[in-house]
Amino acid sequence: MIPRYTRPAMQELWSDATKYRIWFEIEAYAAEAMAKEGIIPEGAAKTIWEKGSQAEFSVERIHEIEAETKHDVIAFLTHLAEFVGDDARFVHQGLTSSDILDTQLAVQLARASDLLIEGMERVLAALKKRAFEHKNTIKIGRSHGIHAEPTTFGVTLATFYAEFDRGLTRLKAAREEIATCALSGAVGTFANTKPEVEVYVAEKLGLTPEPVSTQVIPRDRHAAYFAALGVIASSVERLATEIRHLQRTEVLEASEYFSKGQKGSSAMPHKKNPILTENLTGLARLVRSAVVPAMENVALWHERDISHSSVERGIGPDATGHLDFALHRLAGVIEKLLVYPENMQKNLDQLGGLTFSQRVLLALTQEGVSREDAYRLVQRNAMKVWDDGGHFLDYLKKDDEVMNALDTEKLEAMFDMGYHTKHVDTIFERVFGES
Amino acid sequence: MIPRYTRPAMQELWSDATKYRIWFEIEAYAAEAMAKEGIIPEGAAKTIWEKGSQAEFSVERIHEIEAETKHDVIAFLTHLAEFVGDDARFVHQGLTSSDILDTQLAVQLARASDLLIEGMERVLAALKKRAFEHKNTIKIGRSHGIHAEPTTFGVTLATFYAEFDRGLTRLKAAREEIATCALSGAVGTFANTKPEVEVYVAEKLGLTPEPVSTQVIPRDRHAAYFAALGVIASSVERLATEIRHLQRTEVLEASEYFSKGQKGSSAMPHKKNPILTENLTGLARLVRSAVVPAMENVALWHERDISHSSVERGIGPDATGHLDFALHRLAGVIEKLLVYPENMQKNLDQLGGLTFSQRVLLALTQEGVSREDAYRLVQRNAMKVWDDGGHFLDYLKKDDEVMNALDTEKLEAMFDMGYHTKHVDTIFERVFGES
Amino acid sequence: MIPRYTRPAMQELWSDATKYRIWFEIEAYAAEAMAKEGIIPEGAAKTIWEKGSQAEFSVERIHEIEAETKHDVIAFLTHLAEFVGDDARFVHQGLTSSDILDTQLAVQLARASDLLIEGMERVLAALKKRAFEHKNTIKIGRSHGIHAEPTTFGVTLATFYAEFDRGLTRLKAAREEIATCALSGAVGTFANTKPEVEVYVAEKLGLTPEPVSTQVIPRDRHAAYFAALGVIASSVERLATEIRHLQRTEVLEASEYFSKGQKGSSAMPHKKNPILTENLTGLARLVRSAVVPAMENVALWHERDISHSSVERGIGPDATGHLDFALHRLAGVIEKLLVYPENMQKNLDQLGGLTFSQRVLLALTQEGVSREDAYRLVQRNAMKVWDDGGHFLDYLKKDDEVMNALDTEKLEAMFDMGYHTKHVDTIFERVFGES
Amino acid sequence: MIPRYTRPAMQELWSDATKYRIWFEIEAYAAEAMAKEGIIPEGAAKTIWEKGSQAEFSVERIHEIEAETKHDVIAFLTHLAEFVGDDARFVHQGLTSSDILDTQLAVQLARASDLLIEGMERVLAALKKRAFEHKNTIKIGRSHGIHAEPTTFGVTLATFYAEFDRGLTRLKAAREEIATCALSGAVGTFANTKPEVEVYVAEKLGLTPEPVSTQVIPRDRHAAYFAALGVIASSVERLATEIRHLQRTEVLEASEYFSKGQKGSSAMPHKKNPILTENLTGLARLVRSAVVPAMENVALWHERDISHSSVERGIGPDATGHLDFALHRLAGVIEKLLVYPENMQKNLDQLGGLTFSQRVLLALTQEGVSREDAYRLVQRNAMKVWDDGGHFLDYLKKDDEVMNALDTEKLEAMFDMGYHTKHVDTIFERVFGES
Repeated sequence: MIPRYTRPAMQELWSDATKYRIWFEIEAYAAEAMAKEGIIPEGAAKTIWEKGSQAEFSVERIHEIEAETKHDVIAFLTHLAEFVGDDARFVHQGLTSSDILDTQLAVQLARASDLLIEGMERVLAALKKRAFEHKNTIKIGRSHGIHAEPTTFGVTLATFYAEFDRGLTRLKAAREEIATCALSGAVGTFANTKPEVEVYVAEKLGLTPEPVSTQVIPRDRHAAYFAALGVIASSVERLATEIRHLQRTEVLEASEYFSKGQKGSSAMPHKKNPILTENLTGLARLVRSAVVPAMENVALWHERDISHSSVERGIGPDATGHLDFALHRLAGVIEKLLVYPENMQKNLDQLGGLTFSQRVLLALTQEGVSREDAYRLVQRNAMKVWDDGGHFLDYLKKDDEVMNALDTEKLEAMFDMGYHTKHVDTIFERVFGES
Repeated sequence: MIPRYTRPAMQELWSDATKYRIWFEIEAYAAEAMAKEGIIPEGAAKTIWEKGSQAEFSVERIHEIEAETKHDVIAFLTHLAEFVGDDARFVHQGLTSSDILDTQLAVQLARASDLLIEGMERVLAALKKRAFEHKNTIKIGRSHGIHAEPTTFGVTLATFYAEFDRGLTRLKAAREEIATCALSGAVGTFANTKPEVEVYVAEKLGLTPEPVSTQVIPRDRHAAYFAALGVIASSVERLATEIRHLQRTEVLEASEYFSKGQKGSSAMPHKKNPILTENLTGLARLVRSAVVPAMENVALWHERDISHSSVERGIGPDATGHLDFALHRLAGVIEKLLVYPENMQKNLDQLGGLTFSQRVLLALTQEGVSREDAYRLVQRNAMKVWDDGGHFLDYLKKDDEVMNALDTEKLEAMFDMGYHTKHVDTIFERVFGES
Repeated sequence: MIPRYTRPAMQELWSDATKYRIWFEIEAYAAEAMAKEGIIPEGAAKTIWEKGSQAEFSVERIHEIEAETKHDVIAFLTHLAEFVGDDARFVHQGLTSSDILDTQLAVQLARASDLLIEGMERVLAALKKRAFEHKNTIKIGRSHGIHAEPTTFGVTLATFYAEFDRGLTRLKAAREEIATCALSGAVGTFANTKPEVEVYVAEKLGLTPEPVSTQVIPRDRHAAYFAALGVIASSVERLATEIRHLQRTEVLEASEYFSKGQKGSSAMPHKKNPILTENLTGLARLVRSAVVPAMENVALWHERDISHSSVERGIGPDATGHLDFALHRLAGVIEKLLVYPENMQKNLDQLGGLTFSQRVLLALTQEGVSREDAYRLVQRNAMKVWDDGGHFLDYLKKDDEVMNALDTEKLEAMFDMGYHTKHVDTIFERVFGES
Repeated sequence: MIPRYTRPAMQELWSDATKYRIWFEIEAYAAEAMAKEGIIPEGAAKTIWEKGSQAEFSVERIHEIEAETKHDVIAFLTHLAEFVGDDARFVHQGLTSSDILDTQLAVQLARASDLLIEGMERVLAALKKRAFEHKNTIKIGRSHGIHAEPTTFGVTLATFYAEFDRGLTRLKAAREEIATCALSGAVGTFANTKPEVEVYVAEKLGLTPEPVSTQVIPRDRHAAYFAALGVIASSVERLATEIRHLQRTEVLEASEYFSKGQKGSSAMPHKKNPILTENLTGLARLVRSAVVPAMENVALWHERDISHSSVERGIGPDATGHLDFALHRLAGVIEKLLVYPENMQKNLDQLGGLTFSQRVLLALTQEGVSREDAYRLVQRNAMKVWDDGGHFLDYLKKDDEVMNALDTEKLEAMFDMGYHTKHVDTIFERVFGES
């Protein structure tokens, strides 16, 4: 976790203190269930809850014990026993450390998902608000970085809304998949515990019981989870890239908010740089880098090996923490984005009416010209605009072959911006359910 | 596509011939819809269907035209016009090449998914059959490659069944996500077409209309799709790894079928190697390698750039084709897997009863010994087995501290294999819905 | 290998025919060496060479035999025996199939490297030529997509020259590393052959003997090799991205050559798109996708497993073939790149002298103003240009605090383009060794 | 950086304090050089050194300023000015923040490399020592996890030595590549500074001047660097995997040292697990995950964008820190590895002489039997051992076809272990230069 790119809620979620608290809850709920099942005395379960919930676990003390045992869960249990006393022997009965560790990770990933869902919703709200605000703000659409045909900035934002909405759906599915509880004991056979204990603890923690585990919760769940984050990160990158493009000096159709006191460059005081969206581009790469190791973690040996653990100590906090940060940074960028409709219009006018080339092409074919000929006619006039400037319409009017097929009035009527925006309402209906 | 690792159905699906056929169908359905919408004459739509559906498109001719135009869809349309004649000018009205290309890819990925779903179902069927066959075949469970506690081979297979079943669910979701149709024209505004055309064609092709596109179908869909394949590939790797382990000379609890006439090594005639599962391990790496580039494809510039195209020409056929092959190879391995229950028993017996160490530990705590002391008592006797061989039970009996807490009868009763399999039915119920 | 993105020389290099020819040569040279070492009769070695070199190996026949033996090298040897006759029993003495396969791959990767080196040299030559041509072509430098300070287009190209030159150095090192020969027999002990045989064959094939192999040539060599390709691909992406940016409608400082007859869009005849560099961007992603699986191939089990093989059947031809194609496509783009110096000047003038902001800042500090104050003074005048247009110099002149420190003459003298290009010769000397 | 997997030296190297110290040194050396070049007063340079070197920079204060300026280098310079006073206006003259940041990263990566080189040398020393110790310790070689032919444990370790030695060579090359200094100012033209300043500072910091930079040090250097780490990590994984395999219960030819007080499992006190090498397997995945984002960082836009920065704040400390930790952990594992020669012998004997199958095959061909027939004869006897147990030699003796070609004495003489180790000295000479 890079502190600079982690919000406090995530920092706390992945802290040692939170981890130990979750471990305790798992053990205490398990004790409760075991008491119900008659595996351990009721009094013991009560003592465990009472003494444990008042305990202030010491990270240092646990690390000290771990230095000898080389086993983190045993170290914690030993420390817990220092609070619970004699009844501590009834803690962890029939369980194995994977039960605790994997269920803890499930709790953390579920909670992290909730934070991420909040972030996604903030991004979506910002996108929707700005989309409606700019529903009819005309701008040129660009394919290959080249002016194509007009669209509106609202439509552009709507494409992102739809994309983040899909991301949210996938995130929720991934959250559901990851939120399982396994308390099945060594090699997952429940030999020294009972399936009922697992069911009980799962419910208490808001998880679902893992149908079958090999001692560990199967890592295809985690692979799918981090992949879902990776796709969202890629969408963050797409939106960040869009804004970086729009802020280019020559384009300048939108820009990140530049706060009072902000400095763009140590050398050049004139600079206003899209540093937030560039930063988001990099964060997207970081989040995505969790995907492959998460997939490499799937093929554990036999009933379990512990190779996944060090990977998850890295990617668990990092991928969720950085994506969470990125979502809020992104939402802020959208919320405060400066939009320059007049520059949009200026850029739109730049290409001398070329953006209507398709409409002329189609009109020619409708008038009986073959597609190949029509293409040739339109292209030869368009190239004059590229080469010598001037307005496309003027060249067309001087082209006899064109004018044989189309009359002037018809031709001029085609150069109408409204033609390109007539379906914006339909698009908004599809995306937002309203327009 | 590596021919050696591609089944004919996939080869054909990704052939040029299939691609051109899909292009034609999209254009022809679109013409039909446009006729209905009054955009083009009804007769033209009919002619396009009739002449086009009888045409035998020539890949060579299309490549020849493309060599000049540097544009594949235009080359195809020009070739199509050679069959359709004059009415060809009504083909592709208001559409752009992305409409054709992206919808074609959607059709291919949807069909590829159907083949993959078949493969998954074959794997699942094989796993289920063999799981029930070996529901009670006792074997040692291993964590960290070290003997842990007993389980059954059926339970092992059940864990894979559950995992592939999740993979199938994700695959079906990914298939649904990828199966969209965009016919929204340049920059996605429907300026020269109508949303109704898109809806019509989508239905004809078994796709859903893309709610909003930037000219291209958004690539987060594809990223999520290839990620789903990557997770399945990782599950293939886990199962392949399991079998490779089981076939090791010293373990030999199962092995790939070795056919008559097969030769294991050019140098050593005695060899029977798990080459199919090793191959599957490699194929998993190949399939997974599609995930990151698919994610890098998401952040296209503005309304579209074409950088995704070359990537998809690679990963589209490769990832689907190789995974399809891998699933069928894997299913074959499972179907014909040789299982050696007697070796499972032999290995199980090897560790002199150590697999009951936990049960003894728990019994001690139940009798009032603290967890830490119980652990110490059990561990010191277990280490004697590691160091000097012999049976765990014998050492325990000679340990006064142990025997102070447990009587001989109780102790002997613990060394009971059935203890470990008593929940197998429950697990099978959870996984298969039957036991 | 995507045929569309593979040049014929690479296609041939990775063909079955070439592979079998290399296999034959390895076996025949090995036989020669064994004859020298007295392991097999001299006559046999001769017969093998003579009959084998005249043989026309049949791919179909080999596949037919492999269908039974499930072993490709044995299938080849059996086929070879059909030509060589009785003496065929002296072929492959003491060798194992890895010896043949790994050495063959080494030969292919070495030859592929030679093709790649040619491609790199063509790119370098093109970059150098165009760099000198535009050594003094002034253009704005951009950081964060925002105008920064002036540079020349020649300097821009020089940065790419230096980068590709580093890539070439790394490629040559990787080629040397990959070009080893292992003929050490099963588990690499030379038990049934001699180190001298390996040394002999290595020399004949232009390889160096592998110091120690575990039967297979160690895969860290291959991982390093594909990583070297991945870095070059990333440099291809950087150059492609630069050109895509320069060709943007609003920037248009350079563009890909647009050939006669070329069509930019099926819908919009006016389009001239940077499709080659977009394609290169995608190819870079594809080539890079080989890096991680190549690294995953390193950890083979014990003396060997065959999981690397399927991976290499994919990435071997793909990564080398696509990079080779990309290098030549890139070289062509650079060679024929259309450069528009007048647009460079126009863009440079756009920001009203802001590019001199640093120089004014420094002059102020030299005159005794603190860095913080100087920054504030310059920034407040620069922001006026952003907000209201106009020329930076005019605003400065009206700022009393500025003029208290600097006189008009000094100030005006700073707005001198030559100031920014005075070290271009030094840079060229460093990069090209000449200027 | 995961604290648990980071040694103190790395922690310190990547601390804020170290970073600011390096920033100061760069600025101070630059001031020194500028004074020499007459750009700033000599006295100012002295003051900067004196006051700055005694300053205790406050991370909090810098963060406070950064909160306003949104620029880390400016924040530092402002803080530095609080110590230096008036002459602070001569700090950073003509430089830009990339100069400071990129040169600082170069210093850190160079120092990190030195730590990594130490780690590699410790691993190599351990491998060499143990290789010589077990030069003649016979064990079975395994291909595909199946017994192949004998080798020695020393040879196995020698293969790793050679591999890590290659890794060290690549690391040193990568270190040299990464250790460059760029002080070329905005867009890299030296407009407001001089190349001489860069040369001076480079020398002082033990770096080489970057021949040409686009303001930033080109990221192909960093991509190559992290790729070199990724390959080493993959070699760590191979060695870790080897040990994990050897420690398997059924194999048990070697095992990680198990310390007094160590506990293998919270549930099963009998367990001794290879947790260190499993952990290394995971760390390898983590380190490797830096490679792709480092490559994605190469294609920065124009003269620079800052997207690489967040990536490097992650992978810089993480990849170097975790690999450094992994190398020392690995060295410790090798140094204290428990080796069980008697188990090696026991396993070797398990397959009833099958490991000599090749030798018999070759002897048959030498006696005139065709390769195909010889293979058939040997394979049919070998399969009896697999199916029914017993010794290979006994079956051969009962096979008339075999005995027609070979006499008993010759046959028995073949079953000689020394045959397989006769080239061990040669191999050691090749790898270690001594035997």
